[in-house]
Amino acid sequence: MLSNCFDELRKRSALVHNITNYVTVNDVANIILACGASPIMADDPEDAEEITAICGGLNINIGTLNQRTIPGMFAAGRKAKELGHPILLDPVGAGASSLRTNTAVDLMKELHPTVIRGNISEIKTLIQGSGTTQGVDADVADAITEDNLDEGIEMVKAFARSTGSIVAVTGAIDLVSDGNQCYVIRNGRPEMGKITGTGCQLSGMMTAFVTANPENPLEAAAASVSAMGLAGEIAWSHMSKFDGNATYRNRIIDAIYNMDGKILSEGAKYEIR
Amino acid sequence: MLSNCFDELRKRSALVHNITNYVTVNDVANIILACGASPIMADDPEDAEEITAICGGLNINIGTLNQRTIPGMFAAGRKAKELGHPILLDPVGAGASSLRTNTAVDLMKELHPTVIRGNISEIKTLIQGSGTTQGVDADVADAITEDNLDEGIEMVKAFARSTGSIVAVTGAIDLVSDGNQCYVIRNGRPEMGKITGTGCQLSGMMTAFVTANPENPLEAAAASVSAMGLAGEIAWSHMSKFDGNATYRNRIIDAIYNMDGKILSEGAKYEIR
Amino acid sequence: MLSNCFDELRKRSALVHNITNYVTVNDVANIILACGASPIMADDPEDAEEITAICGGLNINIGTLNQRTIPGMFAAGRKAKELGHPILLDPVGAGASSLRTNTAVDLMKELHPTVIRGNISEIKTLIQGSGTTQGVDADVADAITEDNLDEGIEMVKAFARSTGSIVAVTGAIDLVSDGNQCYVIRNGRPEMGKITGTGCQLSGMMTAFVTANPENPLEAAAASVSAMGLAGEIAWSHMSKFDGNATYRNRIIDAIYNMDGKILSEGAKYEIR
Repeated sequence: MLSNCFDELRKRSALVHNITNYVTVNDVANIILACGASPIMADDPEDAEEITAICGGLNINIGTLNQRTIPGMFAAGRKAKELGHPILLDPVGAGASSLRTNTAVDLMKELHPTVIRGNISEIKTLIQGSGTTQGVDADVADAITEDNLDEGIEMVKAFARSTGSIVAVTGAIDLVSDGNQCYVIRNGRPEMGKITGTGCQLSGMMTAFVTANPENPLEAAAASVSAMGLAGEIAWSHMSKFDGNATYRNRIIDAIYNMDGKILSEGAKYEIR
Repeated sequence: MLSNCFDELRKRSALVHNITNYVTVNDVANIILACGASPIMADDPEDAEEITAICGGLNINIGTLNQRTIPGMFAAGRKAKELGHPILLDPVGAGASSLRTNTAVDLMKELHPTVIRGNISEIKTLIQGSGTTQGVDADVADAITEDNLDEGIEMVKAFARSTGSIVAVTGAIDLVSDGNQCYVIRNGRPEMGKITGTGCQLSGMMTAFVTANPENPLEAAAASVSAMGLAGEIAWSHMSKFDGNATYRNRIIDAIYNMDGKILSEGAKYEIR
Repeated sequence: MLSNCFDELRKRSALVHNITNYVTVNDVANIILACGASPIMADDPEDAEEITAICGGLNINIGTLNQRTIPGMFAAGRKAKELGHPILLDPVGAGASSLRTNTAVDLMKELHPTVIRGNISEIKTLIQGSGTTQGVDADVADAITEDNLDEGIEMVKAFARSTGSIVAVTGAIDLVSDGNQCYVIRNGRPEMGKITGTGCQLSGMMTAFVTANPENPLEAAAASVSAMGLAGEIAWSHMSKFDGNATYRNRIIDAIYNMDGKILSEGAKYEIR
């Protein structure tokens, strides 16, 4: 049950280490607090390892990556792996530059993240960059729609099997799979794309969910995706005439702050395939 | 028509590369989304060039500049120049330190930005730093007012002519000139100065406007200045008793989100000199 | 009178140089503007010294510290010391990693900050790290409560005496002491802990208060603590059913924006011990 995952998160106090971009970092911190966990940010190679050691989970987001923070990502990732902490990789902009693509692929190969979360283009880049070709069809349109849903599910499942990671592809329809099952989630609103960092926020919150639910990482990841989309729906229902994307950003975090397992179970729209 | 520039921006999907400070970067991203464009941030020298290549315009803002990001600014700038992309330079704090003054002057001289946007002190620093003296009078008070407006216009026009850039000086009265014409814009509210980063936000949005209106960069730059000021007026009209600068910040971005050419043409206050 | 300190700040225009983390920097800038002062951020070693020289006070916050910004902190700190500017040290995460602990201790020892502000764990780390043991009792629970208040006051006074700094420990009960007197402040709400960076914001605002009240640094520091807590109370009274931590964050800054000495004197809850 997705709702249980949220209730567990509210009960436990997950501490999440985030090495993330400076564009959306404040919203990431606030949404992690909103969902009942606590954030820490540390990206210096000398600092990242020790900070990871006192946390329960690690969120690596490669937006605004640079030559100083990349070693910090690997150092933290190796320590988290050694300690058995869940690791989430958000390959922001993979495919947009070779530094991003190569860094994301290297992180994926070395750290074997618990979860990889990205948009469809980023995930496709990782699929190609990893040298696997099964399930990857250049004909699959970039967005996952009702029309190409079956192919999308197969692609995500295959990538999850080949990497051993849970793979979450978010868009109009969200897919979350461990290679065996695939959650198909239909929460959310298109206006969320007009806010910077809803994806980054989801990655932070997903790391918290997975950290607080070590026995059910697939369900926990799916719960966070559904919760984020539902927060977008709830927040939109509270928008007034002159509100725009800045207010919408605040209301989404507020909706997570006020959400619990019961609200999630009533609003979650998903099927398992 | 300023309004056409906004409508063009809403129709096209300008992608803007921002190398900007970490203080106001989130608001810059959200206002670029609010006006109908999309932001990308990348400042590492190894990443900046490739990211610029997939964008339509480049916004360089030297707030919180450092030894790592300065080479990123030059690398991105050279690539943007090579590709014919519009470049905006926001010389944040030029005059406050030699690193900022020298970096701004060097960027200006090497990149010949499409637009230079700053406050009057920053622009005066660039005028002096560039070695030109025409039109610069130490007697011109730091703020442009109705009393010294003629001198201010002449100064801005002369600087635009000597650099070949569009020059936008923002303050209580805003001036935007290509050396030939000068838009004198009277939108805005003094309370906007109580929010961090309204200038940075304007620079990001201006880059989007100029990118989406390559045939009319002067009008596009003026349109963005008027839109920002008008957003400040609209947002202020929605403020309640206990609201302050944090809420005002959100409402300004919201006002841009809800603005189009029609609203701009009804609210724009300007003359061409 | 705490209220006088706020009125002085509103009258003077304190310029505060902040070397702070990228997680909460935007909120720090906006709350400094809200209280009537102005923020500047510059962390590059080559830039930090000159920027400090044009400011009135320096706020050093070691959250997201790194190998590039640490030398910037020392360079700015030495210059501020040379010029007689007040320096505030916020040892974010001291105790969580050796880089943070060592950096905080080194900054404290070399710069002799005017004020050290942190939570109880950070301050205890500094007390131990500094080699002093007087007043530090491992039995003192981590949170200061009515039950261990006397011990807490003694500990803070002793640390203030041994460092020569004003020490501010914030939590459910806040203590601010110069070694002689200790303000015991009971403003605030527990929900403030669900917002990232209320501590960072307080440090920025406290630097502004101390900068604008050079004759009364202890009172000024206490006034800022009380004002922040009172803002949390006022903001909470304006929260609606669906609001959460994101809206609360904005309302706290708004409450500071609308606060003055009169409001503070009516709402301040403190005693001097």
